[in-house]
Amino acid sequence: MKKTALIMAGGHGERFWPRSRKNLPKQFLSLTDDGKTLIQLTVERISPLVEAEDIYISTNKDYEDLISEQLPNIPKENILFEPVGRNTAPCIGMGAEFVSKKYGDALMMVLPSDHLIKYGKMYQNTLHDACRIAELDNNLVTIGITPDFPETGYGYIRFDPDELLGRGFKVHEFTEKPKLEAAKEYIASNQYLWNSGMFVWKASSILKRFEQLMPDVYEKLSIIKDAVGTSQQEDIIEKIFPEFPSISIDYGIMEKSDNIYTIPGSFGWDDVGSWLAMERIRKTNEYGNIVDGDVITIATEDSIVVGNNKLIACVGVKDLVVVDTEDATLICSKDSTNDIKKVIENLKVCNRNEYL
Amino acid sequence: MKKTALIMAGGHGERFWPRSRKNLPKQFLSLTDDGKTLIQLTVERISPLVEAEDIYISTNKDYEDLISEQLPNIPKENILFEPVGRNTAPCIGMGAEFVSKKYGDALMMVLPSDHLIKYGKMYQNTLHDACRIAELDNNLVTIGITPDFPETGYGYIRFDPDELLGRGFKVHEFTEKPKLEAAKEYIASNQYLWNSGMFVWKASSILKRFEQLMPDVYEKLSIIKDAVGTSQQEDIIEKIFPEFPSISIDYGIMEKSDNIYTIPGSFGWDDVGSWLAMERIRKTNEYGNIVDGDVITIATEDSIVVGNNKLIACVGVKDLVVVDTEDATLICSKDSTNDIKKVIENLKVCNRNEYL
Repeated sequence: MKKTALIMAGGHGERFWPRSRKNLPKQFLSLTDDGKTLIQLTVERISPLVEAEDIYISTNKDYEDLISEQLPNIPKENILFEPVGRNTAPCIGMGAEFVSKKYGDALMMVLPSDHLIKYGKMYQNTLHDACRIAELDNNLVTIGITPDFPETGYGYIRFDPDELLGRGFKVHEFTEKPKLEAAKEYIASNQYLWNSGMFVWKASSILKRFEQLMPDVYEKLSIIKDAVGTSQQEDIIEKIFPEFPSISIDYGIMEKSDNIYTIPGSFGWDDVGSWLAMERIRKTNEYGNIVDGDVITIATEDSIVVGNNKLIACVGVKDLVVVDTEDATLICSKDSTNDIKKVIENLKVCNRNEYL
Repeated sequence: MKKTALIMAGGHGERFWPRSRKNLPKQFLSLTDDGKTLIQLTVERISPLVEAEDIYISTNKDYEDLISEQLPNIPKENILFEPVGRNTAPCIGMGAEFVSKKYGDALMMVLPSDHLIKYGKMYQNTLHDACRIAELDNNLVTIGITPDFPETGYGYIRFDPDELLGRGFKVHEFTEKPKLEAAKEYIASNQYLWNSGMFVWKASSILKRFEQLMPDVYEKLSIIKDAVGTSQQEDIIEKIFPEFPSISIDYGIMEKSDNIYTIPGSFGWDDVGSWLAMERIRKTNEYGNIVDGDVITIATEDSIVVGNNKLIACVGVKDLVVVDTEDATLICSKDSTNDIKKVIENLKVCNRNEYL
């Protein structure tokens, strides 16, 4: 069956501030040594499985130029612009209608644009196996990540280790982000995976679930489908899309659906959730530092220092994140990276939009 | 008796890097709220005691422009340029010859240009009292600072509490920077003061000591004196000055001299030895931070953040010094400010003179 991909690139994460900005979100940043941006790596990673003309990018109009610069091989008509952000369910529903309009039906891999995968070949094998399960009946497949530690920042997927289909386990439950105690129990039980937000299904399978579980959304999606490829397409999306509720695919569909399978992925997944990810994706030097740019470190350990055009000198610091940009410099302790959003709140309150 | 002052402004301290540079040393920086530079404050502080035309500045040719910008009222002929740095003894000797040439004899207050004094009136009173002692015989007077704590970074002056002349105590000994144990004993004994490097004497008194204790230097100083005010002045200084040994007035004269008195000064003296001084000379906010410029602090405590033209955001940091300038940013833990010089060594080794 035809394989397509929908790469979701509408987010404007704040956790890589000051490098990431509203007009340059994380997926368009290069954080690895090879100089490629996260979205470029995402496309590169699936190209052995999916032709460029079958890759759809869902994003925001603001990022049109970034997408055409960074992904010149993706056909213009495959860039789906969301007039407003409505979380993942409407985005995926619209993507499914585009696929369905073009191919009648096809496999769809739904992928975030801002994650990193260490072992591309294993990742491709996993997606390939997921496709085989998704082709059967109306199965929905989610790629779970074998958890390393009791992370409380992710949702978890509970599966039945005895109910196998190919390499997939039957999913029993999606859980919200757990408390630490619960997360520890999940890990110990060996029946939980991290919910990575990567899905594989047929367009028809997911649209059928929209019809059952979100009939209002489904009705509006059908209107969009009728307009796809016509001169009305842009206007209709502009009109209909804002009417969608803002709801995630997990909450809107996955938690309420049957016939869901999960394949445990062990391909070095990283959601690159904050500057701390730099330590996992870049090599540290002998003092445990990640240093980028014109940086002098004296008695400095376990720190991440990302320079720009100016000299940065760190003296006697430890466990610090320093990020310099043209107009702003962040100095943040490693255990406070979650508070970077408070800087952004402060900037919003003060209407300092040039820094957002 | 005529009162004159010699302000020593030849140093290029490294401890205020990156704000201080070779071409902009600490004495020309403004570190207080009033926007005045340290040398401007030094001159302002003694103006009730000494006329502008009687104030001499000893400095380096490189700082000619800075001096005339910052101190437009000091006569050009009172700026004494040292062709090379030779520590304080030759500098003071030459200053004494200038004074002696102009006035025959006069009182000389020898003052560093890069210290701060909180209570100007008490400072002036102390200098006034020092002048009264210095006028008698050939007394040398040094202003001692009542020590607050067992500082190991300063030299100490041991005095005899029972041998008083006016408000001055007879000095028994100058000591090098002590170890902590010794410093604690000094403080407990109540017979020690910090050596502040401020002196008062008649030009004739100090020149007499040069004649006795450093006869070679004295001979060369006499050659300079003969040239002062002639068309040969600059050439002679250019030729003779480099021949002086590099030696401090403490080591060359004070430690070996008799008839030295010290007046304990309690006028809020601060040698502004490092960025940490900011906490003493500026008001901290409710979180213990000193913040200057465009700075956002989130969960940040007891830190000194000196911005420049760009936004600095500090998140979850404590006891940190952050100093931004046009071309370099320093991030230094408070207990490592002594290591800032290692950054400068690194820059020197790499021949990156633009940052020095």
